[in-house]
Amino acid sequence: MDYSGRLRRLQAALPESKLDRLLVTHLPNVRYLCGFTGSAGVLLVSDREATFFTDGRYIAQARVEVCGARIVIARKAPFLAAAESLAGSKNRRVGKRILGVEGDSMPVAVRDRIAALLGFRFKLRSAPPLVERARMVKDAEEIGCIRRAVEIGAGLFPILRKKIRPGAKEVEVAGALEYAARCAGTEGMSFPTIIASGKRSAVVHGRASEAAIPRRGFVVCDFGVILAGYCSDRTRTVHVGPPSRAACQMYEAVVEAQQAAVASVRAGVTAEEVDGAARRVLRKWKLARYFTHSTGHGLGLEIHEAPRLAAAQTQELEPGMVITIEPGAYIPGKWGVRIEDVVVVTPSGCEVLAPRDKELIAI
Amino acid sequence: MDYSGRLRRLQAALPESKLDRLLVTHLPNVRYLCGFTGSAGVLLVSDREATFFTDGRYIAQARVEVCGARIVIARKAPFLAAAESLAGSKNRRVGKRILGVEGDSMPVAVRDRIAALLGFRFKLRSAPPLVERARMVKDAEEIGCIRRAVEIGAGLFPILRKKIRPGAKEVEVAGALEYAARCAGTEGMSFPTIIASGKRSAVVHGRASEAAIPRRGFVVCDFGVILAGYCSDRTRTVHVGPPSRAACQMYEAVVEAQQAAVASVRAGVTAEEVDGAARRVLRKWKLARYFTHSTGHGLGLEIHEAPRLAAAQTQELEPGMVITIEPGAYIPGKWGVRIEDVVVVTPSGCEVLAPRDKELIAI
Repeated sequence: MDYSGRLRRLQAALPESKLDRLLVTHLPNVRYLCGFTGSAGVLLVSDREATFFTDGRYIAQARVEVCGARIVIARKAPFLAAAESLAGSKNRRVGKRILGVEGDSMPVAVRDRIAALLGFRFKLRSAPPLVERARMVKDAEEIGCIRRAVEIGAGLFPILRKKIRPGAKEVEVAGALEYAARCAGTEGMSFPTIIASGKRSAVVHGRASEAAIPRRGFVVCDFGVILAGYCSDRTRTVHVGPPSRAACQMYEAVVEAQQAAVASVRAGVTAEEVDGAARRVLRKWKLARYFTHSTGHGLGLEIHEAPRLAAAQTQELEPGMVITIEPGAYIPGKWGVRIEDVVVVTPSGCEVLAPRDKELIAI
Repeated sequence: MDYSGRLRRLQAALPESKLDRLLVTHLPNVRYLCGFTGSAGVLLVSDREATFFTDGRYIAQARVEVCGARIVIARKAPFLAAAESLAGSKNRRVGKRILGVEGDSMPVAVRDRIAALLGFRFKLRSAPPLVERARMVKDAEEIGCIRRAVEIGAGLFPILRKKIRPGAKEVEVAGALEYAARCAGTEGMSFPTIIASGKRSAVVHGRASEAAIPRRGFVVCDFGVILAGYCSDRTRTVHVGPPSRAACQMYEAVVEAQQAAVASVRAGVTAEEVDGAARRVLRKWKLARYFTHSTGHGLGLEIHEAPRLAAAQTQELEPGMVITIEPGAYIPGKWGVRIEDVVVVTPSGCEVLAPRDKELIAI
């Protein structure tokens, strides 16, 4: 991965944002900038250097993983060690210096402890989301990782066809899927696997439960894998038993909404326009009020990243953004359907990763 | 679960902490107080009432799960909806009222947006960790959940004996384990499974990798399951091939440290004393400098909770606390050993959950 380029571009952006230093504490941002994959580490960046702080658990791992930054092993929380090193640094400038922090993720208590340590030497300021903005647009290597993750995820769907049957528990289906994901070499799942059957298909985030799959009804299957740190995300809805005409219509409506949203994606279009494209179709089918979430989201090192495809999101899509398109409709107490793909934004449209047929499958 | 009692006790504690309201945003705390298991929801608590805010994805789920609170489905982020409802509430008192927030987890940006919405009506203050303190001591039902989770986790160890062999990939071992955990009815793993073999056994948080298990050496196996929301955590270290005398000594030292720490646990002892008991043994074996993490931590709805068993932690243990005891020693580039149990603190000592033999197993 292009750690040195990422760090260099961030460093070049600091003066523009009027920051003397940026304390990167959000772990996916730390990983993006220097490669560290552990659970405790912060990166302190100035326009000329970068220092990585971690604790004793990560001595060996930091040496192997961290690129482009000096490594400090601390005997205290890494953010405290970073703040202390700053407090002890020489201030050649007159007046307070500005330390940018990641306000979207830094807890209030952490900010307060850092402010107390730095006293009058540095003023803390919530920095603009510099790293998140950079992460929105993926480079070729990142797109390659996501592509492979999505391909592996898509390759697991035959397991659903085999394991979903009346009486089987949702967790058993999820377990078989996750085992196959592991055997395919993934690091694990990118979020808790959703297998929501029968009436539970109307529960948007219906994690696989102990419930037995009923003899007839939809089963929403939404899951993703992590490969080399990058997430996949994909939803298919199948039907157990012969689907009624109403079930077929419901499914058709969601497929049409999903395809309309995919067709609307291209560089220069705003996130809310893509969301609107899906919503318009569902309005036609009188299902708009049952589409209770946003149309999609960016994904990469995190399962949910910018941009968000929802109303009032004016972010323009750019080539290299990787987003999900996942409209759905959920009628409480009855049933639900969701269909989701990951697409890469291109100048003239988008590439659907692992495109497959979307006809309703009856099991 | 005793949601009504938990909420009542929290409400009773608000005046004492000089809080008019507490905005509970940390999801495990929300779950602890009202039962909601989703990924977006906040609980606004006054001394007389509680209101739960979530978004459209959780309409059905909130109705099924949430106990003891009025439910509001918001069209915006739940914390914003909660702040707006407060901003619109009538203030019968003179002067500013105090809204407690969870500063240990609330991001700076969230705090700033809430403060802007509330203007002069409420003053925000980082509340003491009232819910975390309550959660430290588990009731009988919670201990029952953890006990079952630990039993299931311990029951998976035979799979390690079967799957660990020279040439097998660490991820394959992890995958087989996780599949068996799913089949046993668990919701998933409580943290990324650690299978660290050969030289990687010195990497404290060595998540299962694509590395093949070498012909000879330690394999550190550290994993936990989630059952009904409650976590287990357990580490065993096995040896592939016949262990050398040095390996046996290394193992013996860690077992002795672990047993000394377990023996030191009882109500009234401080967290640092338990940590010291393990460290003293490893000092005797000249391994103290290779024990680079704390001796243990509380666990429950989260895999890491208070108390923390480390130097300078003066928290006294209380009956009903559930903690891990997990000393280890890691010689970079060579090998590492860790042994971990979950114990329940009792007035006169502790109960080790799923106690099993700890002799070195050679595979």
